[in-house]
Formats: sequence, structure tokens, C-alpha cells
Amino acid sequence: MDAFLQERRAMVEEALAAILPSPAESPAGFAEAMAHAVQSGGKRLRPVFCLACAEAAGGSASDALNAACAIELLHTYTLVHDDLPCMDNDTLRRGKPTVWAAYGEALAVLCGDALQALAFETAAATGDIALVRELARAAGPAGVIAGQVEDIRYDGHPSREVLDYVFRHKTGDLFRCACRMGAISARAAKEALAAITAFAEHFGLAFQIEDDLLDAAQSKEDAKPELSCLDLMSAEAARDWCRSETEAAVAALATPCLVSGAAQALTTLARSLISRTV
Amino acid sequence: MDAFLQERRAMVEEALAAILPSPAESPAGFAEAMAHAVQSGGKRLRPVFCLACAEAAGGSASDALNAACAIELLHTYTLVHDDLPCMDNDTLRRGKPTVWAAYGEALAVLCGDALQALAFETAAATGDIALVRELARAAGPAGVIAGQVEDIRYDGHPSREVLDYVFRHKTGDLFRCACRMGAISARAAKEALAAITAFAEHFGLAFQIEDDLLDAAQSKEDAKPELSCLDLMSAEAARDWCRSETEAAVAALATPCLVSGAAQALTTLARSLISRTV
Repeated sequence: MDAFLQERRAMVEEALAAILPSPAESPAGFAEAMAHAVQSGGKRLRPVFCLACAEAAGGSASDALNAACAIELLHTYTLVHDDLPCMDNDTLRRGKPTVWAAYGEALAVLCGDALQALAFETAAATGDIALVRELARAAGPAGVIAGQVEDIRYDGHPSREVLDYVFRHKTGDLFRCACRMGAISARAAKEALAAITAFAEHFGLAFQIEDDLLDAAQSKEDAKPELSCLDLMSAEAARDWCRSETEAAVAALATPCLVSGAAQALTTLARSLISRTV
Repeated sequence: MDAFLQERRAMVEEALAAILPSPAESPAGFAEAMAHAVQSGGKRLRPVFCLACAEAAGGSASDALNAACAIELLHTYTLVHDDLPCMDNDTLRRGKPTVWAAYGEALAVLCGDALQALAFETAAATGDIALVRELARAAGPAGVIAGQVEDIRYDGHPSREVLDYVFRHKTGDLFRCACRMGAISARAAKEALAAITAFAEHFGLAFQIEDDLLDAAQSKEDAKPELSCLDLMSAEAARDWCRSETEAAVAALATPCLVSGAAQALTTLARSLISRTV
């Protein structure tokens, strides 16, 4: 599984480096701020899932490379804005200063804004308007942003309704979009796209539950209460939930309308990512 | 001219109202924040120019209505983020509280982010990938954002090089994009698109110079120095420059490859907008 992941990650890294603006064509220091945000050691899971879903749907990873980069640029912009003082007020991300801590708040706002525009430029470079539509819906006020709005409003009094809403939109919509853009890049038929969509919806949930379990295992001191499924259930119940979403995700891939070898690789990848806690 | 302007403005207002998310499909209060930003009494000049350029290029205003709304949503997001405390720190815009002053900084960041995504969703709704590409290039790190980055860096020591750069990107790129998206919506031939582009580049400059002249006429107390062409030249020299850019813009429209009546209306509109100071 490591080789599968590393190979696709390397494709994404190389493509992202080629997409980032050169310092020569940007105001002084701005290309550096964008590169700082994009090349900060992220795991590239969303773009790797995008490529793997393209392969499961009968295409090649390279068919989906622009779509994968568009997703990663969009994800990166949300992190840059999330870290701002008025949002999560984080000064470190993966051990490095966040964009606003390194370049100032104003430049961090603009860096995020530019990364969102670049995500759409990259999606449009495919020539496929369906990919742009998919990305815009996931990124917009009924997608990721809806989840963010509810998340920043969270006051420490959890409800299952709010949890489900934030999980579905904040993490889920972008993950679903990554997988669907992979399938669309491979010109997936309707049934294959439906299978990939079901996989993505279940696995996006499993991934978020796993993230809450991992967070709980680390000692953190947050000024602001963070929404976690563990505020509503025991760790054991969360692990059960995570397992059942993973099994539902994997079951969705067991269909003859997907390429069986590639679907198997996707299954192995999905299982390996949630094996840390469950 | 007023009827021409009012009629197109009304089309844009109606279309924007239909595009904005309903409170039912957004987190509580968020659709209201987006509507507050979009329906705050803006003059809708960019979308009106978009429609008028579609007509000059042989199409109808309604052909370009989605493109026009996409441009206005993108312009609005830049204003929402510009007003933030870490940027211009403005609490009022057109006599009403800015989004961050009314809804808080975090929601204002997210509101701007959502409006940018909605701009791309609206451009993609045309089905024309060329329009998405045009918008993405203008919005991105080599477009509007490049101008913004230089503008917020301005320290009160003007140079002609920085002025030209900020004028071209901060105001110019979006204005050029509005006009070109209008022409592209009308399936303009190469020569017509080139004429519209030349018009837009010259008129965008004239419009920005006019804006600086109007700003100078108002007594303002800014904490931060604002870049103005009047820091580099006399008001008389700025008026001469504005006039010459306007004439160059209008001259670009005098070509048989545009529809003469519509090009004439565009000329009259352009002249009317810079008549306040020159």
C-alpha cells in the first residue's frame, strides 16, 4: 500500500509544483507565501483518492491529475483561512509557522483567496465544465463553507444534528468532491459514479471520526471548544461507528462496474488509513 | 443613458437575487450575510459593462447575464475581504456596516470565500469553460490578487512602476474580464474580442484615475496611506491622463466588427461615467 500511496503522492507533488506561480510572475514574496502553504508536508490524501477513484472507474491516474491538484489547492486555501487569528488562531501547522504567522494576516487572506482562484483555474484547465461545477458546489455556501460556518459557531454544547451537519459539509463535501472528480475525469458511467460517491460519503465520515479519535489521544489545549464526536459518544461507540462507515464504504466498491484491481487497491488504501485507532 | 444603465442594472439585480442562496439551504444567518454583501447598493458597473459588451459584440444582454453576475459576485468578495480589520479596516461601506462589522470577522472571511466559489459556480452554469478560464485568470495570483498584494504593501512612497502595476491588476484585470466575458458570451469573433479588450484596458485605467480624483475631492482620514495617482502627478495631469485613456477606449470601439448602435451606447456610457471630474 505504501508504494501505491507514494507513487500517486509523487505525481501530485510534481504537478502542484508546476502549477504554483513563479516568483517572477507574482509580487515579491507572494509566490513564496503560496508555496509555503501548498508545500508544507500535507499527506495529499484527497488528491490521491481522486487519482485512485479515476483508476477504479476505468481511467488512468494521469487523466485526473489536474482535478486532483484543484482539490488540493482548494483544501489548502481552507486551511490557510482556518488558521487566521479570527478563526482558529493557529500559529503552527505540521510544525511550521502558519501562513499568517509567517507572512502576516493580510497576506494570508490574499494567499487563501489566490489559492481558491488557482484551484478553479486548474479545474478549468481540464476543459471539462462538469469538473468545475463539481468543485464549485463543494466549495460554496452549501458545501465546505456551510460546515465551516457551523463549526466556528460551535459553543461547546454539542448536538447530533450539528455534528452530522459539520461532518457532512466540512470534511465530507470536499472528500466526496475529490472522489467524484476522479471518476468524472475517467468519464465514469452513471453506475460507477454512484458507487464512487457512496464510497466517498461513507469513507469521508469514517475519516472524520478517526480524526476525532486521534485528536482525543493527543493532549491539546484549545482556547475554543472543538466539535468532536466524542462529546456525544464514548470512544468505543465512535470506533464502532468508524468501522461501520468504513465497511459501508468498502462494500460500495464491490461492484462489477468498477475495475476490480483498482477498486481493491482503493479498498486497501481506505482500510490502511483508519487502522490507526480502530 | 440613464434608461440604458437602469434597464441593465435591473436585469443584474434580479439575476443576483435568484443566485444568492436561500436562508433555508444555508446555516442560520449566513445567507443574510451574503445578501448583505451583495445587495448593498453597488452601482453594478462591471456587470453592466459585461452586458453592454455582449451587445456590442452582436449578442443580447441576456446571453451574458450569468457572466455578469459571476463578475459582480467576484468583485463583491474582494470588497468583503478588503474591508477586514487586517486589510483596510473599514466599518462602513456605502453608509452601511461592512460585513465584518455586522457579522464578525470570521463570518466575513467565510462570506467572501463563499462568494468567490459562487462566482465560479455561476460562471460554470453557462456551460462555457472559456468563461471560467477568463474569470479564474483575472481572479488569481497574476490578476486582481497581485494588485491587492502590492496595494496593501504600499508604504506612502509612490513609484510610477507600482502605480501602473496596481492600476492594471487591482481595478484593471476585473474590468477587462467583465468586458471580455460579455464578448465571449456573445461568441465574439477574434477582431471583436480584441476591440472590446482594448476598450476595457483603456477604460479601466480611466475609471481608476477618476476614482482617485473623486477620492481626493472628499476629506478622508485614513490610518494607512492609500495609493493614488495624485501622489505622482498634479490633478490637471491626472485629468489629462483620464481624458486620453477615455478617448483611446472609445476609439477602440470605432470598428465595423462591432454592432454600431450598441458600440455607440457603450461609448456614451463610458463617457458619462468619467464626466464627473474631467
